[in-house]
Amino acid sequence: MSFENAWLQYSKICNEENKKYFFRVYAPDKNRVTTSAIQELACAALKIFDCRMQPAADQDAATISLVLDQERNLGTEGYEITEADGKLQITAGAPAGLLYGSFSCIRRIQCEKPLKGFQERKLPSAPFRMLNHWDNIDGSIERGYSGTSFFFQDQKVLVDDRTRMYARLAASVGINAVVINNVNVKGNATKLIDGTYGEELRLMKEILDDYGISLYLSLNFAAPMELGGMDSADPCDPEVAGWWKEKMKELYTRLPGFGGFLVKADSEGRPGPFTYRRTHAEGANVLADAVKPYGGRIIWRCFVYNCQQDWRDKKTDRAKSGYDNFMPIDGKFRENVILQIKNGPMDFQVREPVSPLFGGLKKTNQMLEVQIAQEYTGQQRHVCYLIPMFKEVLNFHTYCKEGADTVQDIVTGKTFKTTNCGIAAVANTGDDENWTGHDLAAANFFGFGRLAYDMDLTAEEIAREWISCTFGNDSEVQEKIEKMLLMSWPAYEKYTSPLGIGWMVNPNVHYGPNVDGYEYDRWGTYHRADHLGIGVDRTKDGTGYAAQYLEPNASAYESVETCPEELLLFFHYIPYTYRLKSGKTLIQHIYDTHFEGVENVDEMVKLWNSLEGKIPEKAFTRVQKRLAHQKMHSREWRDQINTYFYRKSMIADEQGRTIY
Amino acid sequence: MSFENAWLQYSKICNEENKKYFFRVYAPDKNRVTTSAIQELACAALKIFDCRMQPAADQDAATISLVLDQERNLGTEGYEITEADGKLQITAGAPAGLLYGSFSCIRRIQCEKPLKGFQERKLPSAPFRMLNHWDNIDGSIERGYSGTSFFFQDQKVLVDDRTRMYARLAASVGINAVVINNVNVKGNATKLIDGTYGEELRLMKEILDDYGISLYLSLNFAAPMELGGMDSADPCDPEVAGWWKEKMKELYTRLPGFGGFLVKADSEGRPGPFTYRRTHAEGANVLADAVKPYGGRIIWRCFVYNCQQDWRDKKTDRAKSGYDNFMPIDGKFRENVILQIKNGPMDFQVREPVSPLFGGLKKTNQMLEVQIAQEYTGQQRHVCYLIPMFKEVLNFHTYCKEGADTVQDIVTGKTFKTTNCGIAAVANTGDDENWTGHDLAAANFFGFGRLAYDMDLTAEEIAREWISCTFGNDSEVQEKIEKMLLMSWPAYEKYTSPLGIGWMVNPNVHYGPNVDGYEYDRWGTYHRADHLGIGVDRTKDGTGYAAQYLEPNASAYESVETCPEELLLFFHYIPYTYRLKSGKTLIQHIYDTHFEGVENVDEMVKLWNSLEGKIPEKAFTRVQKRLAHQKMHSREWRDQINTYFYRKSMIADEQGRTIY
Repeated sequence: MSFENAWLQYSKICNEENKKYFFRVYAPDKNRVTTSAIQELACAALKIFDCRMQPAADQDAATISLVLDQERNLGTEGYEITEADGKLQITAGAPAGLLYGSFSCIRRIQCEKPLKGFQERKLPSAPFRMLNHWDNIDGSIERGYSGTSFFFQDQKVLVDDRTRMYARLAASVGINAVVINNVNVKGNATKLIDGTYGEELRLMKEILDDYGISLYLSLNFAAPMELGGMDSADPCDPEVAGWWKEKMKELYTRLPGFGGFLVKADSEGRPGPFTYRRTHAEGANVLADAVKPYGGRIIWRCFVYNCQQDWRDKKTDRAKSGYDNFMPIDGKFRENVILQIKNGPMDFQVREPVSPLFGGLKKTNQMLEVQIAQEYTGQQRHVCYLIPMFKEVLNFHTYCKEGADTVQDIVTGKTFKTTNCGIAAVANTGDDENWTGHDLAAANFFGFGRLAYDMDLTAEEIAREWISCTFGNDSEVQEKIEKMLLMSWPAYEKYTSPLGIGWMVNPNVHYGPNVDGYEYDRWGTYHRADHLGIGVDRTKDGTGYAAQYLEPNASAYESVETCPEELLLFFHYIPYTYRLKSGKTLIQHIYDTHFEGVENVDEMVKLWNSLEGKIPEKAFTRVQKRLAHQKMHSREWRDQINTYFYRKSMIADEQGRTIY
Repeated sequence: MSFENAWLQYSKICNEENKKYFFRVYAPDKNRVTTSAIQELACAALKIFDCRMQPAADQDAATISLVLDQERNLGTEGYEITEADGKLQITAGAPAGLLYGSFSCIRRIQCEKPLKGFQERKLPSAPFRMLNHWDNIDGSIERGYSGTSFFFQDQKVLVDDRTRMYARLAASVGINAVVINNVNVKGNATKLIDGTYGEELRLMKEILDDYGISLYLSLNFAAPMELGGMDSADPCDPEVAGWWKEKMKELYTRLPGFGGFLVKADSEGRPGPFTYRRTHAEGANVLADAVKPYGGRIIWRCFVYNCQQDWRDKKTDRAKSGYDNFMPIDGKFRENVILQIKNGPMDFQVREPVSPLFGGLKKTNQMLEVQIAQEYTGQQRHVCYLIPMFKEVLNFHTYCKEGADTVQDIVTGKTFKTTNCGIAAVANTGDDENWTGHDLAAANFFGFGRLAYDMDLTAEEIAREWISCTFGNDSEVQEKIEKMLLMSWPAYEKYTSPLGIGWMVNPNVHYGPNVDGYEYDRWGTYHRADHLGIGVDRTKDGTGYAAQYLEPNASAYESVETCPEELLLFFHYIPYTYRLKSGKTLIQHIYDTHFEGVENVDEMVKLWNSLEGKIPEKAFTRVQKRLAHQKMHSREWRDQINTYFYRKSMIADEQGRTIY
């Protein structure tokens, strides 16, 4: 399928002041990443300014210079941009920094900000800035809402023009590592680690290398059995360890510089160390030892819980499982293992508390996992700009270390002084022409990368950058789309599940309202609504989850009075007649937010429709269609949720609006 | 897969009195069906009595004679059995009667009843006694719970030993017509009517013919487009009519004596006459005209409703749709069209009122459709002997004609003096070794056929026959299994949805409890439960459905006081505090029946376990495993339903039992 250029389309801009920097480039370094930087600058110059950039013999003759300088303490991925006397200089400690600096300059011209006087020094916030693709080798994508895979098709690995375009998009926002296959590794995907797909992976890695991106794979923990024909995958079995060592030696011989592996083990039916009564540390370490000689890393997911829970059981709490499973083995992991922790203790709901593993774990490398694939937030048919949510997560105080206790501090390495940390997002791309199904969902891809590289950016700044790069700088377009993006997450939260309780979706597909969909199921995802109230008691009288937090968070969550209201039903069972700080009863809050959420959608529809003629027609129509669906579907959410609670509580809406 | 012989296994019996009739057979008729009868008698004699039956030169020399006699008014399928002086004579008007008479004698020896003095005269109750197989051409079976198809596999038609065994089983209980493919006709199944599968169908038809069974197919109404390349399937388009005529001419040339077609049109997304603004009569008649020259028949299903309903809409009622669609065209159908009407207005729920089309339609041929595939009644993992339900349906008084107003009167032809009528069952077979997954589900296959042939039989009599034929005549085995069978449907009803409201199952799979599973969906299947009560108002103040019945049924259903309580929630919204005739409140009735239903299952488990050693081990273990599942799963039903209603009503169980 053909593909568009998303935020790298480089539309024409008439700006002579900025144009003048793009005539002659000087770049003594001949590294392939530096070459990509020059190519990108040339491409932007040509498309934006119709200007054919030429090489300059030396810096004096250049209008733009790309210079490596180890003295500037820019690390391997930082950069410095200075402008003086009509000349632009990008300085870095390594080629990747030059690439990021170049993209920064390009963004600046896309945003029509003057390069004159531009001074910028950036070191990436997160050492690891990863995308996790849940692409299957048959071409399907688990939780994919943008078509099928562009990495795999019919049991084959695809390497083509789209691979390069993908690498450019990812690198342009600072992504430096990608996992191309689904964490649920089955069938032929298990063979990605042996020679079967060796040549294709070599070609793919070459393209990614050009853009400073490390190739990672998801790995099947049972591979020693499935590929090696062994009768066990016990990580403590020396033969298993030996098999892994041999396998990794072969792999790294084929793919020198390969990044490493992402592993989902003992989760939702996947094999893992628990099968052999081994700890996750033992499971991760056998792999870590095997890749260590080659500088490889093991990203080990903490998404481990009992998915065979009895709904009648009110003491077992899925929210507690991550902490319960991993806290006892804090410090037991090799240095080249990084635990990848979902932002919340459940599963990418529209609202969750931050996982208590952040702040809990003190001797283990950590990476935050978020999901830009909108599995539970509208599946890229609803607008839902997630960067504000990620900002909240990053800014959360764990109280683990004075002055360096936020999630951001932890995953950027500030708290525990490590570089084996970072942030990963479950990707939202597919082979749809516009990459992300919903055109506005591209803001999450762009935004995740930008945020990972520069966590000082606000959600608003990122939104504005993305709009400029994608739709240009018309002020009406800017303001209206920014407004849409920023109102979208709150709106989605309003018309779906209230106050942190989550779920209420159709099982399996995770789309559309179904209040009791998971209520009597085995997944540990309950709301416990009855005639009098709703919510899960996670205090010491309930599941005891709140105590997994450090103080003062634990006490704050423990008490109804101090619990943040947006999480009230996550932590407490609350009567419908309880008065919130707004003065409204809980039930009235539910009704009101659901009506409001739909009104917000109507406003988004109006905002978008008013942009007709100012947005390329194809994109305009695509978004318009999805908004029409969102309009209908948000009403379905509103009516089902309101009706459910009205029928259960029999408390009428104070405003007498229609509830069925 | 290998297969067992079900109720035709002919286990050894030591009974010299009965054995003596099986030495010499006289049968002058050489028709293939008569030959099957003789073969079956010989097979039974050999296996049961170890007795090699020989041909006799004349009737005097015979111990058993099969004689055709047109003077006895036995029609084409009736028979008369007389015993005198140690000789047995089976008389019939046509070979099929001889076959049914032979099977009657065999059953009698299987039941160890004396042949001495045996006198029986039977004419089949229903002219058409059909099985509808929902088998797909890829080998899957829609709503199949006994493995995959033995008619189709991987786009091929299968004809093998199992085909013959199937024909023997079906004929042994009186089945005289089978539709081998799913009513949802898609892909290659559409080509079953052209020459593609001509030879296989010819072979299959030969086998079925041997046992007096007519071969029918389901047909794709859009075949003129899909096969004929036409741009319409409009039944009133002369070219379409011409295409059908030509197609049928070809088919009947290949398959002389072919029965005809079963058609699902305009239902659940299937194409039909509505596409062209034509009536169902116009749709059926174009096909009827095409098959008429060859004596073919069109069975037209009345399962037509709006499956895109808005759950908010409380006036539209799926229950009304069959009547609304077909009553206006009563009398418009050709004589060789038979409308096939599901027993209830919804879809094979554990309890439904009888379809008001029965009694409503007065000038159209009618056939009752029941489902022995236990789609909504435990899917052949739960025991659910359905013959008592079918008896209730057949005995229902429609009040359409004095003295001949029951459903049985209508479908046996008594009411409207026709032979184009009968009863069809959606089949419950597959390629499982025991044919029906659950060994006890075979009682429904057996029982359906027996009942269709002889509607005077009671459910108890049929159960006892089946047990004797299958498990022998040990009195403990007899009594305990009969008890299990007869308690099974009431038990299933008790622990699932109460008082006729139906549904409350997981969508799509239709298995397992999910009270709100269909409540906010588009299928027209709601319970409307709120804090105060539950039920659908189908009176004149509600959807008006009750008025579709003839008096006095209409008035009886209209009023809460006179409505049969087992259907109370189907017709009325009832407060939980309403007192039933038992003196119990509705909510207490719900709790009590759900606890009772589970106790009934526990009793069934005990009854079965006590038979260990008396039942062949393989069958014993298979049933034991399924009962263990039923035990667990009935608890799941009990707990989810009780918890749902407790949480909604907040009315405590008077007995203080555990509700979650």
